[in-house]
Amino acid sequence: MTRVTVWGENVHESTSDRVREVYPDGMHRVIADALNEDSNIRASTATLQEPQHGLSDEVLNKTDVLTWWGHCAHDQVSDEVVERVHARVLEGMGLIVLHSGHYSKIFKRLMGTSCSLCWREAGEKERVWVCQPSHPIAQGIDRYFEIPNAEMYGEPFGIPVPEEQVFISWFAGGEVFRSGATWTRGNGKVFYFRPGHETYPIYYQAEVRRILRNAIHWATPTTPRWVDEAPNVEKVEGAE
Amino acid sequence: MTRVTVWGENVHESTSDRVREVYPDGMHRVIADALNEDSNIRASTATLQEPQHGLSDEVLNKTDVLTWWGHCAHDQVSDEVVERVHARVLEGMGLIVLHSGHYSKIFKRLMGTSCSLCWREAGEKERVWVCQPSHPIAQGIDRYFEIPNAEMYGEPFGIPVPEEQVFISWFAGGEVFRSGATWTRGNGKVFYFRPGHETYPIYYQAEVRRILRNAIHWATPTTPRWVDEAPNVEKVEGAE
Amino acid sequence: MTRVTVWGENVHESTSDRVREVYPDGMHRVIADALNEDSNIRASTATLQEPQHGLSDEVLNKTDVLTWWGHCAHDQVSDEVVERVHARVLEGMGLIVLHSGHYSKIFKRLMGTSCSLCWREAGEKERVWVCQPSHPIAQGIDRYFEIPNAEMYGEPFGIPVPEEQVFISWFAGGEVFRSGATWTRGNGKVFYFRPGHETYPIYYQAEVRRILRNAIHWATPTTPRWVDEAPNVEKVEGAE
Amino acid sequence: MTRVTVWGENVHESTSDRVREVYPDGMHRVIADALNEDSNIRASTATLQEPQHGLSDEVLNKTDVLTWWGHCAHDQVSDEVVERVHARVLEGMGLIVLHSGHYSKIFKRLMGTSCSLCWREAGEKERVWVCQPSHPIAQGIDRYFEIPNAEMYGEPFGIPVPEEQVFISWFAGGEVFRSGATWTRGNGKVFYFRPGHETYPIYYQAEVRRILRNAIHWATPTTPRWVDEAPNVEKVEGAE
Repeated sequence: MTRVTVWGENVHESTSDRVREVYPDGMHRVIADALNEDSNIRASTATLQEPQHGLSDEVLNKTDVLTWWGHCAHDQVSDEVVERVHARVLEGMGLIVLHSGHYSKIFKRLMGTSCSLCWREAGEKERVWVCQPSHPIAQGIDRYFEIPNAEMYGEPFGIPVPEEQVFISWFAGGEVFRSGATWTRGNGKVFYFRPGHETYPIYYQAEVRRILRNAIHWATPTTPRWVDEAPNVEKVEGAE
Repeated sequence: MTRVTVWGENVHESTSDRVREVYPDGMHRVIADALNEDSNIRASTATLQEPQHGLSDEVLNKTDVLTWWGHCAHDQVSDEVVERVHARVLEGMGLIVLHSGHYSKIFKRLMGTSCSLCWREAGEKERVWVCQPSHPIAQGIDRYFEIPNAEMYGEPFGIPVPEEQVFISWFAGGEVFRSGATWTRGNGKVFYFRPGHETYPIYYQAEVRRILRNAIHWATPTTPRWVDEAPNVEKVEGAE
Repeated sequence: MTRVTVWGENVHESTSDRVREVYPDGMHRVIADALNEDSNIRASTATLQEPQHGLSDEVLNKTDVLTWWGHCAHDQVSDEVVERVHARVLEGMGLIVLHSGHYSKIFKRLMGTSCSLCWREAGEKERVWVCQPSHPIAQGIDRYFEIPNAEMYGEPFGIPVPEEQVFISWFAGGEVFRSGATWTRGNGKVFYFRPGHETYPIYYQAEVRRILRNAIHWATPTTPRWVDEAPNVEKVEGAE
Repeated sequence: MTRVTVWGENVHESTSDRVREVYPDGMHRVIADALNEDSNIRASTATLQEPQHGLSDEVLNKTDVLTWWGHCAHDQVSDEVVERVHARVLEGMGLIVLHSGHYSKIFKRLMGTSCSLCWREAGEKERVWVCQPSHPIAQGIDRYFEIPNAEMYGEPFGIPVPEEQVFISWFAGGEVFRSGATWTRGNGKVFYFRPGHETYPIYYQAEVRRILRNAIHWATPTTPRWVDEAPNVEKVEGAE
């Protein structure tokens, strides 16, 4: 049983009628529901508005994989919480960064780069292509899948070179984007996944939900915590 | 002065009127001319039909960077020549693999994978996007450039994960492709560059010619040959 | 249940009294026994002397992970068998390359480099350090383990930069070596593991046996075969 | 002409007689002198104690490569200066992180990991081995060089997997360490180099000085600044 915390910024949901219409209980709720369709996943939610943004030590210690969606309130996430999440990722907690989460403090903290990109909101068609058909995150997906109306994200994407390139997107307007990529940080596995937007019903789409569940399983830690330290060590007997 | 050998399979040129029309002196000649526009490059040509395919030890020893275009006659390249080229790449000779060269013996030998891809010949529009604007190979190119009529290559591309992702292509027909990527093998730098086809005048296009010249400079060895060996070494005095 | 084929060159065992003394039934037998201590692994053996070196299509199709030990007879392995093994790795079969297998045809075929190194046979002490404590292959190993008498392998090791650096060895004589490293090729996971030699009883050592079992589990394919092809594809409806 | 700023924490020099004895004008001065032996390098210094730690916008804008040595006062470096240096690295300024700088804010900021390690101060012998003989940073160095008395740093080193592994160290006490490794962040090249300590005269040693000069040339930006942004872009004419 993988324990997941779905983190949602949960701001657009209260400020935009359009977003409330698509996600009446919040995007985090829909994402958690998508994950809970898998009986081996137990997903809870946490939001910006809760004390400690819902990410106390207690919560994080019981979280195997954290998913992160934020957009307009990245700056309101406290640095203390970011450091706590960062430490847990290095220990082994998986992290799935979604869509506009590319600009979250935690993703930039883990990547060490700007994480910038180009964008356009024109409701255009996106095709998400599988670059590595054998990757666990791509299982159950055909050669590609389509999102009828999506915000466009375009290259250059300001990331360190990915360890694995799982998906690349094509946009009707003429751009491309590295939509699914992985990195390792300490004992933690990190997956960035582009699709998802507050005004399009993308998190209801079957392929997206399947990929999210796949990603949870892929990012679940399989080994004990890596307790990071810098010990002063004695000379080992018999080295010379 | 960088000494380049432009290798051309040179078969379509003699079997197809259409190809002869576009490249009357052979594609290799047009590529060499593009490189020689740079006064710091001195490019010669070599073809499949010459003895040793024009790639004798003497030629390779005077070659800093080799470019490779092949398509219908990959199997006719002798294994002996492939091993010789391979050894020179490990020593430090740069290698630029062009378009259908993805299936050449030398590229598969260096990658260790299938190097397979999807393709379609429909003369469709290609947009080549820059993923790493700071990369030396991308200098002088805007955010993207277009090729009006191109053969399509699509993902998945059966390569080891690239060390650098320089370009990704968008195709009007709906596909994407990792069109410009780099790897290191021994002391040699390898760049795969997708654009180029025997029936389209792509090697006459300014952006393509600029990228080829950039790639030559990027791949030029800057350090002495790495003479690869497996020596039986004595214990170094004073280790203990 | 992971099905493993333990491949052994099995030449030293018949030509050297010393080797026969240490490995009376062959090194491959001892390695297979180490693996079979895990009830989730079922390891068989195959040797150079069998028809097709014991690696027929039928055998490979039922092999999830192949281990490879060779030393003095790399050249006697038929190219046809190497190509068959290579194709199966790309499809997803895991490959564990042991010690002097660094110079095997299959490892060089997958790496694309020389795979050369320095060496000395002086029965000196080796310390194998864990670089990534969280890696599945390193589980059950303390910060390091020691091999009392080992052949030395030293840098430079002529490999493409590893995707993961699991172990690095220290030798009493003063050298270091990247003793445990991983790469992905197609759908296949490749692990190189340095320890092991025909005249030292290294494959009887608990830590080595544990790492071998860990590596089998790590390299076991988790997704369907990647059937590599280069299809000519139709334009997808509605791209434009 | 490469313009270098050598940054020194410059605290031990005023608090320890031993350090003052070895580096009477500060370690930063000795490092700058080592670099200025190359007529194509012009190195200045900056220290923690200066306003803005000597790293104003004006200074950084004229710096091609920054070297960083810090140890006991990492926490005293202002976050504002760290962000400024970070932004310049992404733009293309090279960064050479020295020895105990592994725990500096700027290195951890760029790596996204803990950057922790094991250590022991016993004045033991270190051998620094070349893993990639062809790498520009290793030129002029034989197979290895020795430091007679060094502080030991041992694995595991809490870094993302290096893009290039240039050096690995062997210590008489029995440990190993990835002493020279490179990463790319945005347009900036980052090199971590282990040797160097406040109480040993390591920055006077010829091999170390040669490597520092090599590293400056390697890290010098060769392309224009990458001005990182996230533009809202118009649809490009004619995409469909």
